Amino acid sequence: MAVKGSVKLLGFSVSPYVNRVQISLNLKSIDYEYLIEAFGTKSELLLKSNPVQKKVPVMIHDDKPIYESLIIVQYIDEQWTSGPTILPTDPYHRAIARFWAAYVDDKVFPSLVEYRKAAEEEKPAALERVKEGFALLEEAFVKSSKGKAYFGGENIGYLDIAFGSILGWVKAGEKMAGLKFLEESNTPSLVLWAENFLSHEAVKGVIPENDAIIAVAKMLDGSKN
Amino acid sequence: MAVKGSVKLLGFSVSPYVNRVQISLNLKSIDYEYLIEAFGTKSELLLKSNPVQKKVPVMIHDDKPIYESLIIVQYIDEQWTSGPTILPTDPYHRAIARFWAAYVDDKVFPSLVEYRKAAEEEKPAALERVKEGFALLEEAFVKSSKGKAYFGGENIGYLDIAFGSILGWVKAGEKMAGLKFLEESNTPSLVLWAENFLSHEAVKGVIPENDAIIAVAKMLDGSKN
Repeated sequence: MAVKGSVKLLGFSVSPYVNRVQISLNLKSIDYEYLIEAFGTKSELLLKSNPVQKKVPVMIHDDKPIYESLIIVQYIDEQWTSGPTILPTDPYHRAIARFWAAYVDDKVFPSLVEYRKAAEEEKPAALERVKEGFALLEEAFVKSSKGKAYFGGENIGYLDIAFGSILGWVKAGEKMAGLKFLEESNTPSLVLWAENFLSHEAVKGVIPENDAIIAVAKMLDGSKN
Repeated sequence: MAVKGSVKLLGFSVSPYVNRVQISLNLKSIDYEYLIEAFGTKSELLLKSNPVQKKVPVMIHDDKPIYESLIIVQYIDEQWTSGPTILPTDPYHRAIARFWAAYVDDKVFPSLVEYRKAAEEEKPAALERVKEGFALLEEAFVKSSKGKAYFGGENIGYLDIAFGSILGWVKAGEKMAGLKFLEESNTPSLVLWAENFLSHEAVKGVIPENDAIIAVAKMLDGSKN
């Protein structure tokens, strides 16, 4: 195990943002203490460590709090330089990975939420937007992976973690909707990538099961059943 | 001048996001061709280079397009390693600079827009939100700068560029509102920092004058006078 001071992670496991940090720590074989925040409450430690946002994930490394999932992932990569690298080494490839990671957060994940909340008559248009996002990521995958299993090539990297962390929500969303967002016909490479990602050693056990996510989605949406 | 392939920048100067790239290129003494997009139109080159977002800034380095202002700034820092560094070298300081840069984009700049668009009776609450953001950045400045002129210390760095790029809009907003957003009593260090930033060699001539910004703000808001 890579040892370099004490690491604590504040979070809860249905958060894809928290999952990103867990996967990155696993990938670098970093031991950490996982402090689970009860859903819907905010611990004193959370309020003290992240007074501006009051949000998880917070990673506390040697008493220094770091926030924002993708910033934490980059911090982990920069601080623990031994082990597999997370960001690509080439500046252009880094820029591309950062661009698509931001795209996942700004467009793709919100499109899933919008689909879930859309009224029946708005569902077809909302589904189109979800599929457009995935189609663009399929193209990005083909360009980035160059025939390898991951966006990062042989091993999972920054964009794999950023995008892969929402796969639990994609699958739970598919189950709730009774249809597929990621399907062979539209995104054949991503379907295979998702399988590879979810069975990766650093990911196994991190991404929550459908039922846990569906329960939280219903709470968030204020649905009764 | 640092020479490393050809650099083109697509943008227009009232965009703080474009200004970030200009300042970073100046800081690293990188020659570039500035291709000005006419406001409200999209050139063929823009549509071809950034088909996903169709937005400026786009920086084209040796025929490879890079988008998103803060991603471009990081690319410049990583690609041209000679000259002053933009990101802090310490991973923790990098994480903090990235956090506040994102805060500027997610909270501070939107709070200025909200103030401008707020109905009269909503202005006081909107002003409070603007000032809260600046007060937090004042604290961040005191911690980061350690008595030096900039967030980055002796020279301007990532957060200086991210935050400083919106100063034109802050000042134009003050002129339109007839009041001060950044004032001695609330944010004494930021007032001084803003002066230093705007008179820095890499910044001079980049941040547009009030009148140019006010004209664009009125167009954006659909105002007639």
